[in-house]
Amino acid sequence: MIIAETIEQLHAALSAQREAHPRQFIGFVPTMGFLHEGHASLMRRAKEECGYAVLSIFVNPMQFGPNEDFDQYPRDAARDIQIAEKNGIDVVFMPSVAEMYPKKPVTKVMIGGVTERLCGASRPGHFDGVGLVVSKLFHLVQPDRAYFGMKDAQQVAVIERMTEDLNIPVRIVPCETVREADGLALSSRNVYLSEEERSQAVILSRTLARAEEWVKSPGMTNRALSDKIKESIGQAPLAKIDYAEVLTYPDLESLHDDAEIISHNGKILVALAVKFGRTRLIDNRLMELHGGGYHV
Amino acid sequence: MIIAETIEQLHAALSAQREAHPRQFIGFVPTMGFLHEGHASLMRRAKEECGYAVLSIFVNPMQFGPNEDFDQYPRDAARDIQIAEKNGIDVVFMPSVAEMYPKKPVTKVMIGGVTERLCGASRPGHFDGVGLVVSKLFHLVQPDRAYFGMKDAQQVAVIERMTEDLNIPVRIVPCETVREADGLALSSRNVYLSEEERSQAVILSRTLARAEEWVKSPGMTNRALSDKIKESIGQAPLAKIDYAEVLTYPDLESLHDDAEIISHNGKILVALAVKFGRTRLIDNRLMELHGGGYHV
Repeated sequence: MIIAETIEQLHAALSAQREAHPRQFIGFVPTMGFLHEGHASLMRRAKEECGYAVLSIFVNPMQFGPNEDFDQYPRDAARDIQIAEKNGIDVVFMPSVAEMYPKKPVTKVMIGGVTERLCGASRPGHFDGVGLVVSKLFHLVQPDRAYFGMKDAQQVAVIERMTEDLNIPVRIVPCETVREADGLALSSRNVYLSEEERSQAVILSRTLARAEEWVKSPGMTNRALSDKIKESIGQAPLAKIDYAEVLTYPDLESLHDDAEIISHNGKILVALAVKFGRTRLIDNRLMELHGGGYHV
Repeated sequence: MIIAETIEQLHAALSAQREAHPRQFIGFVPTMGFLHEGHASLMRRAKEECGYAVLSIFVNPMQFGPNEDFDQYPRDAARDIQIAEKNGIDVVFMPSVAEMYPKKPVTKVMIGGVTERLCGASRPGHFDGVGLVVSKLFHLVQPDRAYFGMKDAQQVAVIERMTEDLNIPVRIVPCETVREADGLALSSRNVYLSEEERSQAVILSRTLARAEEWVKSPGMTNRALSDKIKESIGQAPLAKIDYAEVLTYPDLESLHDDAEIISHNGKILVALAVKFGRTRLIDNRLMELHGGGYHV
């Protein structure tokens, strides 16, 4: 496994690979490191599908707000390198901030529409930072396919729309969220949780499982569903809801409050962001509805 | 020469070329068509330097303002194809608006700083449209080098900064402005000019030649130079100045009004936009100063 800390080292590794195996695909897994089994599942899939897999580890300052956890974001490069090696990665790209941003960028990649709700509303500027760094990484790696976890469903929708709008020659591969035994979605931020917060955090996945049943109830309106979701999360005393919304997917548009959910035709996303103390967790469930029918 | 009207046809041509000649560079000349000798010089240079040359012809609606000349912009596909063929082009990509924008894009590529002055100020949104279409075209063609005329010096600065900020793997090659015998910079918009306007339009290049001398005068301040430039353009009775500015290059920042130009260290751009009737012409001259020295 090659560890590239500079763009020059990355390009040397990729050029040699492309020279030796011009027809082999390159799979890419962009991450902020502190890798867990969710990331590992993306790495294995990239390697299996493409034969050659590149992992990036870069905590991107541009996607954190001024009062967010950039400085505290957990980092463990040595452990990450071991996990990458075990999961079939060929090149780890782990640049410094100065390598990625040698001067303050004046170029913005702003994705509208799909960024208006959910994390786009809660974290102003977040998706501008994501759009910028992901387009930079796509240009640096030039992968055939890029793998993203569906825990960040809005991020997947944003990146799919950006690559489509800009004709970036990469196929985005959304991958299923990996969970703890009790249902908690894996996240690097889970390490922030106290024991008590950790045990209550299961309320997110539990609420999403309930929501899947509620959606099927005839007559269940968007407003009523939102109320039931909020009530369910409220059962965890430490939980503070940031948002709990039901939106169309992938356009992430609101449903009418009085709309009967089950009569919607298309995909809907039930998306949650909940704070436990200073830790903000997100989770979601994507469902496909057929105007009265229902299909996970 | 292959004429590709769809992205699929373009990709088929480029894949076949890359398959057959994997080490050959691809040179790219993006244009809005109605080709003239300025474009032809870019095509020849792309072909000479890269061995394989792609031309795009696309009048991009996104870079025109609501009151600008998108509908009237001159078009002549048959003539353009002949010129492309004569000048060594291997593939002409001439997509429809629907092919380039199958849905309304929600992604914006906004380049700050360098777009604040000159055409960025006179044509709000213009460079957002340029950034979007050029990044789309770069992703579609994936050229090694892209050729741009220095008549649009700000466009060159904008695209260089965008490719740098986004790590787009293409080398931007700025090329010298091609001129008529009397000095008028070639432009597709020159066809709009009446005979009288055409004869007065020479004031732009003539003023720039004078400005080059004035710059060398000891004690010539930015304010005094601007005044002399405006006075010179005023000698053409039909000329209406949109802007006449002296800026640093490539950052396109203002010089202090009282700054002695000749003592500046670095490149300066004298940039003009002048209207003759409804036709807006631009021209510029780039000079390199060495804090008292001078070099074209």
